[in-house]
Amino acid sequence: MPYVNIKITKTGATVEQKAELIKGATELLQRVLNKNPATTFVIIEEVETDNWGVGGETVTARNAKAAPIT
Amino acid sequence: MPYVNIKITKTGATVEQKAELIKGATELLQRVLNKNPATTFVIIEEVETDNWGVGGETVTARNAKAAPIT
Amino acid sequence: MPYVNIKITKTGATVEQKAELIKGATELLQRVLNKNPATTFVIIEEVETDNWGVGGETVTARNAKAAPIT
Amino acid sequence: MPYVNIKITKTGATVEQKAELIKGATELLQRVLNKNPATTFVIIEEVETDNWGVGGETVTARNAKAAPIT
Amino acid sequence: MPYVNIKITKTGATVEQKAELIKGATELLQRVLNKNPATTFVIIEEVETDNWGVGGETVTARNAKAAPIT
Amino acid sequence: MPYVNIKITKTGATVEQKAELIKGATELLQRVLNKNPATTFVIIEEVETDNWGVGGETVTARNAKAAPIT
Repeated sequence: MPYVNIKITKTGATVEQKAELIKGATELLQRVLNKNPATTFVIIEEVETDNWGVGGETVTARNAKAAPIT
Repeated sequence: MPYVNIKITKTGATVEQKAELIKGATELLQRVLNKNPATTFVIIEEVETDNWGVGGETVTARNAKAAPIT
Repeated sequence: MPYVNIKITKTGATVEQKAELIKGATELLQRVLNKNPATTFVIIEEVETDNWGVGGETVTARNAKAAPIT
Repeated sequence: MPYVNIKITKTGATVEQKAELIKGATELLQRVLNKNPATTFVIIEEVETDNWGVGGETVTARNAKAAPIT
Repeated sequence: MPYVNIKITKTGATVEQKAELIKGATELLQRVLNKNPATTFVIIEEVETDNWGVGGETVTARNAKAAPIT
Repeated sequence: MPYVNIKITKTGATVEQKAELIKGATELLQRVLNKNPATTFVIIEEVETDNWGVGGETVTARNAKAAPIT
């Protein structure tokens, strides 16, 4: 009965990639802790790069400068 | 001073229904634990069905197949 | 398939009261949005009063002064 | 390695203000707990006023009546 | 730079199993979205069965009756 | 009416330091967005180092090897 919340920057993850994350996270909980997939929830939240900060600045600002952070 | 976070799939909850959820959750905390409504926060998050998974697949995929999951 | 997260201060909620919150929140989602209780999750988190702040100070500090905040 | 999540109502915070929040929260963790900014995440979530409740009603409803709540 | 939050019931996950979840979730984000493991956070929260509800009752109550929910 | 959630590793933050975080986060929201401190919530969660991962391994494991991550 696990609950998994995945937050990523909103930078173009496709429907297929999100389905992959959901499938993979569910299998991980089943494999490691024998959790039932039928009652495993996975919620993906995509966050604007203006709203995500690391190193004290927004991801937007960082990516404007140099090698993007994923 | 409770904080309540309700996540639902983004499938057409109306403004009135969301107001009902907020009212109901606030009353619940008051009734059960005598919490002050004035300092009870309720936040509703509506999640795209492509971003919510159960049983290892997206709600979008499940609902395309069979009886919808609410 | 809703997910409800309730955060309250850790100030003695009993097992029965927590069961009441779970029952009430599940019924609320069913009544307002016709959500299936079988796939409604409710998670209660009890937070130490040293770790919860309002008005810029901890709940511990506030309650030491005056009328407790619930 | 802290993780900070800030939820505010979606009422017009600018990109510059959000960058200020990210910078300020990161500096706070560094100043108080000596946390490394390079591994401090800050995520800002902006919530529609129809989806945020306090006192048992939506912020939208409250602000229609009287002095806005910020 | 993903952030993954895994909530499970507190029912005896070992340190090794938790390390497996962290490793697996990090690899999943790298494989599907090419996210950098060095900036992937995974936080596991273990929730008492009295504080987790499904179907309108606590996991404690459900497991006392019948086939445990994991 | 902001809500701030700060997650840090459970590595000895004192009551005074946590009060500093609450004060500082509240002031930050007031300074940048003119939010009312009276309705600003700050919740600090302290996470065991076995339950926090970065780079695919637990903080416990990383700190056993080399320069601690804060």
